[in-house]
Amino acid sequence: MAESSRITARGGVRADARRNRERVLVAARAVFAEHGIEAPMATVARRAGVGVATLYRHFPTRDALVRGAFAQQMETCARTLTEALAAPDPWQGFQQLVETVCALQREERGFPAAFLAAFPDVPSHHEQSRQQAERGLTTLVRRAQAAGALRADFHPSDLAVALLAHCGLVAALPDDGAASRRLVAYLLQSFRADRANEPLPPPGALTLRSLPMAADGPRGRRQRPSGA
Amino acid sequence: MAESSRITARGGVRADARRNRERVLVAARAVFAEHGIEAPMATVARRAGVGVATLYRHFPTRDALVRGAFAQQMETCARTLTEALAAPDPWQGFQQLVETVCALQREERGFPAAFLAAFPDVPSHHEQSRQQAERGLTTLVRRAQAAGALRADFHPSDLAVALLAHCGLVAALPDDGAASRRLVAYLLQSFRADRANEPLPPPGALTLRSLPMAADGPRGRRQRPSGA
Repeated sequence: MAESSRITARGGVRADARRNRERVLVAARAVFAEHGIEAPMATVARRAGVGVATLYRHFPTRDALVRGAFAQQMETCARTLTEALAAPDPWQGFQQLVETVCALQREERGFPAAFLAAFPDVPSHHEQSRQQAERGLTTLVRRAQAAGALRADFHPSDLAVALLAHCGLVAALPDDGAASRRLVAYLLQSFRADRANEPLPPPGALTLRSLPMAADGPRGRRQRPSGA
Repeated sequence: MAESSRITARGGVRADARRNRERVLVAARAVFAEHGIEAPMATVARRAGVGVATLYRHFPTRDALVRGAFAQQMETCARTLTEALAAPDPWQGFQQLVETVCALQREERGFPAAFLAAFPDVPSHHEQSRQQAERGLTTLVRRAQAAGALRADFHPSDLAVALLAHCGLVAALPDDGAASRRLVAYLLQSFRADRANEPLPPPGALTLRSLPMAADGPRGRRQRPSGA
């Protein structure tokens, strides 16, 4: 009896810690989206409804917190890609990936923009998953092209172009789901092989790897205090 | 002789003042794009190579400087619209407007993003030109649709969707002209009537007037010091 109640209590503590961790991550994503990645840790704790000490127990540094918030996004994206690659119809898989990632961008209300704008250096242990994602996306593109559904001149880097553009749109208009859905529909239609009768300008050298370099761009720089 | 040299000197002073004003505006756009609209006035003066007193003589307040920098953009956009409306081929006119505005967004290297993100309140004397632009853009759209070149379900608000998305792309990748040109080509192709055989989701209520409201969005808020 004493033993069993101790186990329950311990289990309760663990469940409680898990819940707190989850609440901190949700709060961190919201705060980063609103105030940028350099928002005070105390703001995140307040939003999560936990003490600052609790926050630091789970995430000893800001960097650990940013990684934690970002890791979930990476996992969701990786799962989306796996499911897209498993779709029996190659075009459906391709379309599903674009629509799901754009829905994520919409629901996270600006987090992707905050990430792109301000992530100081992507942790090197993410390098491997990025390379894996890169290969998966290229397979997805080639498969849809082989099926004759995706235009032959579509370049894998065009996926990054589309996602970055959509990301910019939802960052500017976080509450406009209609605008986001129109853009996604237009882009998907322009990617179809049966509508590709005009040549495109040549693609750039954009890869998933180049995305975090946007942190050096105007948005990244703007975000830091300028000494004003 | 004395009279003539006085006139020349006066003309020289005026030309000098004009040059300084122009340099301040160019510097302001660059500084706002990099550090946001709340960058120190001294930074703008330094970048322009003029004294702070000179800057304040031309633009007594930050607001006046922001309006000055923005007024030029408005004029360029208005001229682009007038030229597009005058194009003999309605589709060419439509395409020309999209391509020119996107080229401007590309060349200004992030200024439109800075504007959208941080402009606190659009001066009311711009309201009239905005309404005029709104009417002109609607005419441009209707004309291209009447000619059978632009898809019938294209909504004038889709122009704002496209420009905001492109703006987000160039803000994230300021040096990637190839990415910008690919996006513009894809969008224009998806707007063509002869490729419109799939229905679109319903358009939103986005107008030119709603754009500055993006200042209330995550990017706008993020930009202000959060007390970190």
